Amino acid sequence: MRAGFDPRLYLVTDTLLCAPRSVPEVVAAAVSGGVTAVQVRDKTAGRRDLLALTRAVQEVLRPTPHVRLVVNDAVDVALLTGADGVHVGQDDLPATDVRTLLGPDALIGVSVGSPAELDEVLALPAGTADLVGLSPVWSTPTKPDAGAALELDGTRALASRARAGGLLSVAIGGISAATAAAVAGTGVDGICVVSDICAAADPAAAARTLRAAMAGELVAR
Amino acid sequence: MRAGFDPRLYLVTDTLLCAPRSVPEVVAAAVSGGVTAVQVRDKTAGRRDLLALTRAVQEVLRPTPHVRLVVNDAVDVALLTGADGVHVGQDDLPATDVRTLLGPDALIGVSVGSPAELDEVLALPAGTADLVGLSPVWSTPTKPDAGAALELDGTRALASRARAGGLLSVAIGGISAATAAAVAGTGVDGICVVSDICAAADPAAAARTLRAAMAGELVAR
Repeated sequence: MRAGFDPRLYLVTDTLLCAPRSVPEVVAAAVSGGVTAVQVRDKTAGRRDLLALTRAVQEVLRPTPHVRLVVNDAVDVALLTGADGVHVGQDDLPATDVRTLLGPDALIGVSVGSPAELDEVLALPAGTADLVGLSPVWSTPTKPDAGAALELDGTRALASRARAGGLLSVAIGGISAATAAAVAGTGVDGICVVSDICAAADPAAAARTLRAAMAGELVAR
Repeated sequence: MRAGFDPRLYLVTDTLLCAPRSVPEVVAAAVSGGVTAVQVRDKTAGRRDLLALTRAVQEVLRPTPHVRLVVNDAVDVALLTGADGVHVGQDDLPATDVRTLLGPDALIGVSVGSPAELDEVLALPAGTADLVGLSPVWSTPTKPDAGAALELDGTRALASRARAGGLLSVAIGGISAATAAAVAGTGVDGICVVSDICAAADPAAAARTLRAAMAGELVAR
């Protein structure tokens, strides 16, 4: 695992929601407001556009190397850009194969939406996955194919088991400033946000508001 | 370039057109009928399914190692499976990046639909790309986003320039047994077929018919 990954406020990009602003522009603002990690996700882009997008976001993050960059799904793009890691869903490459391709230093995250899916990650050889994305906390229009909502109780149960198994956990799905404190208080190591930052009129202010809402709620390790 | 790539009758798979038969089942039949190379293409599959599909096709091809296996777009899947190469379109990773990831021995193909796109491939450093897919010869329902049809004259012009530039060329798009001879006579090194084999009631017979139709038409190097 890439040392120093800070998942507290983890931005997952959505190209359409950022428009008409560019994704790198929104990322820059969000980082200035307190985003601690960035995942480039664009399931509709071809690999050529995704490579260019990832490089552009990487350029924006150059002055803040503590804000790690993760690529959703595209291991080839992560290899070409030297991104800090890859996040895979249940339809993407298995974490074991991602680890084979990326080597021991990469941050590998896996989406899990149920106890059974978490069990599969926990059963992997140590060092295969570093982080689980607990998803969705609530249903969200940005990921209509996601499973049933975990809600706070489900998130708390999965976060506890992830921590006991040595995995970082982040919660994702429909989290806004109004709910960030409650989600952060479930025992996760961070929250992932898409719409609440990408669609915000002022992404920097949105990130500041989220960080303020979460203050003191995350349980230190 | 992977030595011994034989592009004469190059099958590009389409999972939906093969159904209800599996892709490996159709590939096995097609190879028994004379297909000389196979490209696994499934633009709708997630990487996990594509990896499984590629491994299943690879298993089917194990007894015929002279029939090379190419993966469409997915460099990560090619790395994991040790496939013989990757074919990229204009929206996929640039050939230079694919070569970086796959190393000198892989077969790298690039789709080109115009003289300008062929110029870009010819301008790459020697050894970057090995093959161009001239596309589409005719418009085809299996690739509705393809550009204007090259028809026979356009295919002939591009094939001639590809050969002069040291590249293999194959023609793709709407080729059937009725047109295979005319396309093979344009100076390409092979023809690519999707529907005419994947949707055939008897894929082995379809491949045999195509090989018979092309007999004597391809110009040896």
